Amino acid sequence: MSILLEKKCTACELGAPLVPDKDQIELLKDLDSWLIDKSDIPKLVKTFKFSNYLKTLNFVNLIAKLAESEDHHPRITFEWSTATIEWWSHKIEGLHMNDFICAAKSDEIYTSLK
Amino acid sequence: MSILLEKKCTACELGAPLVPDKDQIELLKDLDSWLIDKSDIPKLVKTFKFSNYLKTLNFVNLIAKLAESEDHHPRITFEWSTATIEWWSHKIEGLHMNDFICAAKSDEIYTSLK
Repeated sequence: MSILLEKKCTACELGAPLVPDKDQIELLKDLDSWLIDKSDIPKLVKTFKFSNYLKTLNFVNLIAKLAESEDHHPRITFEWSTATIEWWSHKIEGLHMNDFICAAKSDEIYTSLK
Repeated sequence: MSILLEKKCTACELGAPLVPDKDQIELLKDLDSWLIDKSDIPKLVKTFKFSNYLKTLNFVNLIAKLAESEDHHPRITFEWSTATIEWWSHKIEGLHMNDFICAAKSDEIYTSLK
């Protein structure tokens, strides 16, 4: 189990620390197939696949529930059989530890549905 | 009320007619602030705004319910206070009348929430 699952998001204020690049690489190893998109503000990104729309929608709602409970809200893009989740921290325009925690929790939700 | 609201999606098979460009322009006039993104496969696109996450999520779920009832599924991208809906017809790689109908019904849903 990811050590990130034992953590909970902390308040992320202006000036909160970005995760340094070398730590990002280590944290990625603790996640399942997440990528960091650095084309703009760095974001943790993963596309999850499902066998039908209601399963996709159910996952989306569970991620939204996680977002509310952590008070940290990702961008979610979904179609019939895919949901792409992007975690980043708006206030610091980059990746905070919260983003890695929420990525791990997203994986946990996906695994629980199998 | 949009005349599109009186219509229901029809089955869209391979070879079904694309809406000609001149008709697209007329149909857009019957919608509220939708744009056609022609950067790739043409898509009807609109971003809706909300005052909090639960309102955004509620709208997203209502659009998903519409998608299931019409058996026509858009791409939905949402964050804390915005939901962007993209309607297009995968099988014909472009805009079918179904897309304009669903855009009008999306507007109707949004208006019902005000």
